[in-house]
Amino acid sequence: MSHPHPDLTLPPPLPEGGLRVVPLGGLGEVGRNMAVLEHAGRLLVIDCGVLFPEDHQPGVDLILPDFDYIRDRLDDIDAIVLTHGHEDHIGAVPYLLRLRRDIPLVGSQLTLAFVEAKLKEHRIAPLTLPVREGQVEQLGPFECEFVAVNHSIPDALAVAVHTAAGTVLHTGDFKMDQLPLDGRITDLRAFARLGERGVDLFMVDSTNAEVPGFVTPEREIGPVLDQVFAESTGRVVVASFASHVHRVQQVIDAAVANERKVALVGRSMVRNMGIASELGYLRVPDGLLVDLKQMENLPDDRVVLMCTGSQGEPMAALSRIANGDHKVSVGPGDTVILASSLIPGNENAVFRVINGLMRLGARVVHSGNAKVHVSGHASAGELLYCYNILRPRNVMPVHGEVRHLIANAALAVRTGVPADRVVLAEDGVVVDLVDGRASVVGAVPCGYVYVDGSSVGELTEVELKDRRILGDEGFVSIFAVVSSGDGKVLAGPQIHARGVAEQDGVFDEILPVLTEALEEAARSGATDTHQLQQVMRRVVGRWVSNKLRRRPMIIPVVVEA
Amino acid sequence: MSHPHPDLTLPPPLPEGGLRVVPLGGLGEVGRNMAVLEHAGRLLVIDCGVLFPEDHQPGVDLILPDFDYIRDRLDDIDAIVLTHGHEDHIGAVPYLLRLRRDIPLVGSQLTLAFVEAKLKEHRIAPLTLPVREGQVEQLGPFECEFVAVNHSIPDALAVAVHTAAGTVLHTGDFKMDQLPLDGRITDLRAFARLGERGVDLFMVDSTNAEVPGFVTPEREIGPVLDQVFAESTGRVVVASFASHVHRVQQVIDAAVANERKVALVGRSMVRNMGIASELGYLRVPDGLLVDLKQMENLPDDRVVLMCTGSQGEPMAALSRIANGDHKVSVGPGDTVILASSLIPGNENAVFRVINGLMRLGARVVHSGNAKVHVSGHASAGELLYCYNILRPRNVMPVHGEVRHLIANAALAVRTGVPADRVVLAEDGVVVDLVDGRASVVGAVPCGYVYVDGSSVGELTEVELKDRRILGDEGFVSIFAVVSSGDGKVLAGPQIHARGVAEQDGVFDEILPVLTEALEEAARSGATDTHQLQQVMRRVVGRWVSNKLRRRPMIIPVVVEA
Repeated sequence: MSHPHPDLTLPPPLPEGGLRVVPLGGLGEVGRNMAVLEHAGRLLVIDCGVLFPEDHQPGVDLILPDFDYIRDRLDDIDAIVLTHGHEDHIGAVPYLLRLRRDIPLVGSQLTLAFVEAKLKEHRIAPLTLPVREGQVEQLGPFECEFVAVNHSIPDALAVAVHTAAGTVLHTGDFKMDQLPLDGRITDLRAFARLGERGVDLFMVDSTNAEVPGFVTPEREIGPVLDQVFAESTGRVVVASFASHVHRVQQVIDAAVANERKVALVGRSMVRNMGIASELGYLRVPDGLLVDLKQMENLPDDRVVLMCTGSQGEPMAALSRIANGDHKVSVGPGDTVILASSLIPGNENAVFRVINGLMRLGARVVHSGNAKVHVSGHASAGELLYCYNILRPRNVMPVHGEVRHLIANAALAVRTGVPADRVVLAEDGVVVDLVDGRASVVGAVPCGYVYVDGSSVGELTEVELKDRRILGDEGFVSIFAVVSSGDGKVLAGPQIHARGVAEQDGVFDEILPVLTEALEEAARSGATDTHQLQQVMRRVVGRWVSNKLRRRPMIIPVVVEA
Repeated sequence: MSHPHPDLTLPPPLPEGGLRVVPLGGLGEVGRNMAVLEHAGRLLVIDCGVLFPEDHQPGVDLILPDFDYIRDRLDDIDAIVLTHGHEDHIGAVPYLLRLRRDIPLVGSQLTLAFVEAKLKEHRIAPLTLPVREGQVEQLGPFECEFVAVNHSIPDALAVAVHTAAGTVLHTGDFKMDQLPLDGRITDLRAFARLGERGVDLFMVDSTNAEVPGFVTPEREIGPVLDQVFAESTGRVVVASFASHVHRVQQVIDAAVANERKVALVGRSMVRNMGIASELGYLRVPDGLLVDLKQMENLPDDRVVLMCTGSQGEPMAALSRIANGDHKVSVGPGDTVILASSLIPGNENAVFRVINGLMRLGARVVHSGNAKVHVSGHASAGELLYCYNILRPRNVMPVHGEVRHLIANAALAVRTGVPADRVVLAEDGVVVDLVDGRASVVGAVPCGYVYVDGSSVGELTEVELKDRRILGDEGFVSIFAVVSSGDGKVLAGPQIHARGVAEQDGVFDEILPVLTEALEEAARSGATDTHQLQQVMRRVVGRWVSNKLRRRPMIIPVVVEA
């Protein structure tokens, strides 16, 4: 997708004194969040995350925002503000820093700790500026005021960017749990002050805008976990995201209450909880944590395993446990809790794991049958509070698919924001804030950038389409060696097919037909290898289509010798 | 999967006078329902459906039950009883009839009409025996009594099979709407009579056993559709399953109430509703239906389109409308209603369509935001009624994944069925009813049989694995011609890669290395083409892994000339 809106053209230059906002990810998909603000010739990046591939993007590891828009202006970037430590906000930072290593990263202590651990794997040591809620930092022409928000990872921040063109308030990801586990609420008083001062553009998390009402408080989960632990006569295994510090805290608290030790399983779980614990975000009583070896010597009912794999990821711990392919085994009497959301698209994988665990005899508790997870994103009820307290002059919904953005826009309008002050944009769309009015002025090319093995941005839709054809139909490759003089067939043709349903030897039938076709072509003077390849393609393609009713990829190769 | 339970072996012979039940599909997955009953040397098949593939079965068209168990006993089959006309109950009938054309098909009028239309496409004219609720037919040693049940397609039946070994009651798919649109309730009085007579084995639909409570009545949808139609200033497009006759009836009734004409879009929708209408299951007022051409001449607010594609299927009407790739276009003012369930696994496809429609400006109504669909399967509340009215001696949950079967088993136990009389089986497991007691006595091999193009049962897990590798990683094929005498390279090596992310010419780097490796091998006496192929595989595989960090399929071919 090179132009998000086919009827939009490249934007005119930013008027002097104006502020430009270009989302490069996160609008039109849930993932790879990234926004570029421009003012007075300088750039400020807010978040830089990754998107995970779907099934029609086979083999792809990650999808990045498209950096083309800023590739020639890297030196104009004053900083990257990171609102919180989730992958869809920090995962692409290594790829941006590869382009310019010294772009300062600005974020809270935990956010920076997570991104630094990630950057270490890429052998990058970043410049960082830790900030706290309440702090104000001048980053070039952008005066950034940081505000505490509550989310499903600790230490999340919203950022109010004050410039001569006006104030942009970006929520990052947030909800508004009024009794959060760590006592750190979304600072509505700060929102009120900002509202009174005037918010010119409100960039707001749309993920749950379609959901009426309010998010269930996180602390309602604790007693449920406690109850399930108490009821279990055997082991308890809990799976959640490796970044959900508060969920792990609840598991730890329930384990203590039920006299069970806790083993962390899974590389990212161990690493992230180690970081959180060192920095004081996770309270772990001495002696509570054990490793897998120690765990084997404990009675089943004195043990809780906290692991990864809540989305049914085949290589993660939970899936392997469900397949009986892990050091840890479960069976009758054991309980497995999937204390996480079920991200749309992952249903088959998650239910495959649930069925596997139940087949082994374990009891499986999940958000479908018990209150063991709540969302991290504000529902419609909370969003309405924000619109009313802030009374923003312009609104730009962010962080959502089209349906989420549209639903969020509708909420804004319902609270009185004029419809022509609500900007519905997508990745690549250019929004200018000039004289207090935000409007779409054009769009820049903004595609999907694929990380595939060691390649970044090299895999194209052409290769993906090839992969889909190969995956659905397989391929048939045909080799023949012809004499360079007269095109006489010296060896072959040979056929090698993979991924094509065939009885043994079914291709033997076509070989004589193929040989005859090649010789006929040579006789009529077509000795060019390209022409001969086309002959082979035609003969075999037609035959496979008629006989097997399939359309595998055909790779004809003719070599002269 | 050849043995469903690795600890089960082939069963002993069926004791004289006993009844054997072998599920060949539908237990462990939702789809390809098929059960084989055996008594006094004869067989009775209940249902014969298909399963649709998931993403890890790329390119597969359909998955069939495994007929191996009955392949040598086709002449012993007295009949195939078809409970209703859904694909997961009739879709595999053509493939079974190909093996023996004259197996009688027994079912209700609408069920037989749907299966006959399907068989016509396979050029098979079956023997049929239409039956109605209340009718009793002697099919070999199986006295079959048919009972009306309510489902999401009209004319669905349960079947009570009376034999000397006892009575088996198979629900087919059912729910218990007490005010159904066609007035045809699930006949609980017949269940009560059967219960008093004695039900020895109750085979019962488990699909919604995990869902507490009761299914919302179908008739609550009518007013919602009516309201949405009335609110729409433009066109209305409704998508649902092509077999949901009652949903189409509700759309027709709402269209009449709102003075709109109806156009049916999509081959299967047109065909199925044609059959239903001819047989009197669908009431269509004269002049209501228009075709697409006539529709274009009507004002937008006088039109309803009823189409296929509610699961986001890329080739069906709705998806193409969402992509702007259909004669029918939608935009602001138009309303699209997805009046169907969202089958787990289809979320990405469905939301892709919803986002596409919203991007075009249409309003989208779906079961997530309005009451426009109810399930066709009994929830826990209805199942409890059945267990209590029937008081079956043995229970065998059917039609569900492991989690559904286990949940249904738990319901049975809660009503007082002894736990050792509840049989949890999976496809291929053999259950014998002897002296009033049902128990697992072994298992037979029972795998997935893939329909792939024109091949049936030829595609194996090997080819599927190849397709998955090809889809995720692509392939690299290497071709060289060597002299048959001394192994000297005469032409090539040439490399052709597809689906591999690469900069142009990246493989050029490896060609000289490859040539050298081949010549080295020839010099040390390895002139066998197989050995030389292994050399090529090793050199290229290692290089691709190190340089690209990918593992494409490597196809080395050495030809002697």
